[in-house]
Amino acid sequence: MTPKAKREIKNADVVVGYKTYIDLVQNLIKPNAEVVSGTMGREVDRARTAVAKALENKAVVVVSSGDPGVYGMAGVVLEVATAEGTRIPVEIIPGVTAATVAASKLGAPLVSDFAVISLSDLLTPWELIEKRLRAAAEADFSIVLYNPQSTGRKEPLIKAYEILLKYRDLGTPVGVVRQAGRTGEKTTITTLSKLLDCEVDMVTTIIVGSSKTKFVDGRLVTSRGYKLSG
Amino acid sequence: MTPKAKREIKNADVVVGYKTYIDLVQNLIKPNAEVVSGTMGREVDRARTAVAKALENKAVVVVSSGDPGVYGMAGVVLEVATAEGTRIPVEIIPGVTAATVAASKLGAPLVSDFAVISLSDLLTPWELIEKRLRAAAEADFSIVLYNPQSTGRKEPLIKAYEILLKYRDLGTPVGVVRQAGRTGEKTTITTLSKLLDCEVDMVTTIIVGSSKTKFVDGRLVTSRGYKLSG
Repeated sequence: MTPKAKREIKNADVVVGYKTYIDLVQNLIKPNAEVVSGTMGREVDRARTAVAKALENKAVVVVSSGDPGVYGMAGVVLEVATAEGTRIPVEIIPGVTAATVAASKLGAPLVSDFAVISLSDLLTPWELIEKRLRAAAEADFSIVLYNPQSTGRKEPLIKAYEILLKYRDLGTPVGVVRQAGRTGEKTTITTLSKLLDCEVDMVTTIIVGSSKTKFVDGRLVTSRGYKLSG
Repeated sequence: MTPKAKREIKNADVVVGYKTYIDLVQNLIKPNAEVVSGTMGREVDRARTAVAKALENKAVVVVSSGDPGVYGMAGVVLEVATAEGTRIPVEIIPGVTAATVAASKLGAPLVSDFAVISLSDLLTPWELIEKRLRAAAEADFSIVLYNPQSTGRKEPLIKAYEILLKYRDLGTPVGVVRQAGRTGEKTTITTLSKLLDCEVDMVTTIIVGSSKTKFVDGRLVTSRGYKLSG
């Protein structure tokens, strides 16, 4: 978290967020601040609550981890604030997103072009997710997968694996990071052939290398083509 | 910059980096620390210097902005450290990358799937860059362009524009951010039709919306499909 994000949470009259994220910042919230924590899937409600509180002239922070602009609350808050015809100043404070946190733990798999794809089909049609997987694999991007598995639903990851296999070798370096940058973080470095054996859940980020990604001293590095000799 | 990155710079015996980045952290470097600043394009030399200093048991920090794992020094440092047969512990400290900083200034264009593409063909063949542009545009990713223009070379951006136009409407929301998150930051919100009229250089980040990106109160928001009514 950046110093600016911490400062805004400390100054907030109201802190709104998914319960898991609220717990992560609990020690920053001032004692008399109002905390509105919600459950996953109630994003529009949380955005509405935040806008309503802001209309009472309160300093409101909506917590969304790691970067609110990457599969986070930034969009829905802006949409709700505008749909309700209000003119509340909304500031988006960027953070370190799971993709680059995971990359740092794995080595340097994202130093060349990459694509970020969520495997959750709650809001995006599965056909479009498949199309994006194929496009990213065929054009040799390093690929970051968010939300690889919902409770009890391994099918999206199995389907993604089958698509990736059409374009990538079985030996393609793959990294799996659970709870990137948080307590309980777990990092696995493996190959595409073993992807489905990895423990994966909704708080897991997966990075599949491009054809230029190799193992360097046990880590994933996508070569940018620098000449090391001479 | 994260508190962890600041702490490591403060503790460093040696700070190595491209001059522009050294200037950004000058006030954090301890007075007796050695500073090795270099020019753009000498990445391998900088990595070698860093490894040599680390072999003298010095605490070395290689500065690379915004996230060293996104078109930054993380990969080349790991490669050089290993190529020289050393066993230096290398830690990558993630930061906030220009893509998400720019996104936060523009609204929320990256809350759904996105692709990150550098238009610099110094290390990547132009044909591959074109292939990635086409793939990302056809599969309806939001697209982040890094390094859109080198000194005096506008052709890469013109070619990218022509490719994007085949898949996106002229009215597609586009954001252009110079010096994202730094002094002198400049944000332009426009449409694809006016992309080539924008002032663009190597420190500019461009975000081209997907078909789901719209203007919301003057900002770019990619709709994730939440139902706002009811």
